[in-house]
Amino acid sequence: MSLYDETVPHFSQMLDNVDRWLQAAATVAEEGGFDAENFTTLRLAPDQFDLTRQVQSACDAAKLACARVSGVDAPKHADGPATLAELRARIADVRTFLGGLDAARFEGKDEQILRPAFLKGMGATFQNYVRQFALPNFYFHVNMTYAILRGAGVKLGKRDYIGHMTLVKPEA
Amino acid sequence: MSLYDETVPHFSQMLDNVDRWLQAAATVAEEGGFDAENFTTLRLAPDQFDLTRQVQSACDAAKLACARVSGVDAPKHADGPATLAELRARIADVRTFLGGLDAARFEGKDEQILRPAFLKGMGATFQNYVRQFALPNFYFHVNMTYAILRGAGVKLGKRDYIGHMTLVKPEA
Repeated sequence: MSLYDETVPHFSQMLDNVDRWLQAAATVAEEGGFDAENFTTLRLAPDQFDLTRQVQSACDAAKLACARVSGVDAPKHADGPATLAELRARIADVRTFLGGLDAARFEGKDEQILRPAFLKGMGATFQNYVRQFALPNFYFHVNMTYAILRGAGVKLGKRDYIGHMTLVKPEA
Repeated sequence: MSLYDETVPHFSQMLDNVDRWLQAAATVAEEGGFDAENFTTLRLAPDQFDLTRQVQSACDAAKLACARVSGVDAPKHADGPATLAELRARIADVRTFLGGLDAARFEGKDEQILRPAFLKGMGATFQNYVRQFALPNFYFHVNMTYAILRGAGVKLGKRDYIGHMTLVKPEA
């Protein structure tokens, strides 16, 4: 196991799930006869990010964490207002980036020190960065996306949240 | 790294954070002159778990995942209506359980097959169980707890969500 295993599979799986939730929102809008883009500016509280920014932040959390650990530059994306289609394209772009990363580039980094700008001069080991910041931060934006859609009437359940599981057959 | 590293630190850190959010909610109630227990029955949608059940589920997700991987029995807790103090006591109980687990018991389990009842006869490797179910499921209930409190006016931000980070000093 390496930091690759602790990051890329989580990010890939959950971004695929977010993509499906956005599709589900579009379906709800179509069936309800309203503009699907209305979902993009919903937020849980007036001083919290809206759906658009939550999805963008989930994408950024995934790509930046992997860029930092692997040393590979992440694709750049502009923030600001976006359509559901643009959000889905951003997810697809990050999925392509994640899919192209070589797991070997994540090895041996655990105890090296990362000094990201947001720590203002302080540092953290890559291992602590991943476990104490990158992964919980990613799950935060994914879950706020889910919470906004769920609270707005999109029929999502735990199965939609979990998504794919790699199963083995029953015992003979 | 082992499945211990992929589970116990996440669960411990985030449960400590949830405990602090519940304290923050109690403070908001005290300052606003209303019953703090009113928070316990809030929910994001009428067909979703309320705050009480989200906190109980976060506790259960943590203890059951660790019990399964380590082979150590988890403490039992009753569900149903609970006060904030009872929720905090449950968190403390699970924290004690997690803190007492021997990391060695998590080793060598990665490729072994787990057949939890909820997979209805099917199985998953412990590794896939942790990455594709246990960790995202835990983060789900933690984040729904956060979303409920945040949407209800408790002043929480990303720093409260992330909590402790183990930092190293600036470079000389």
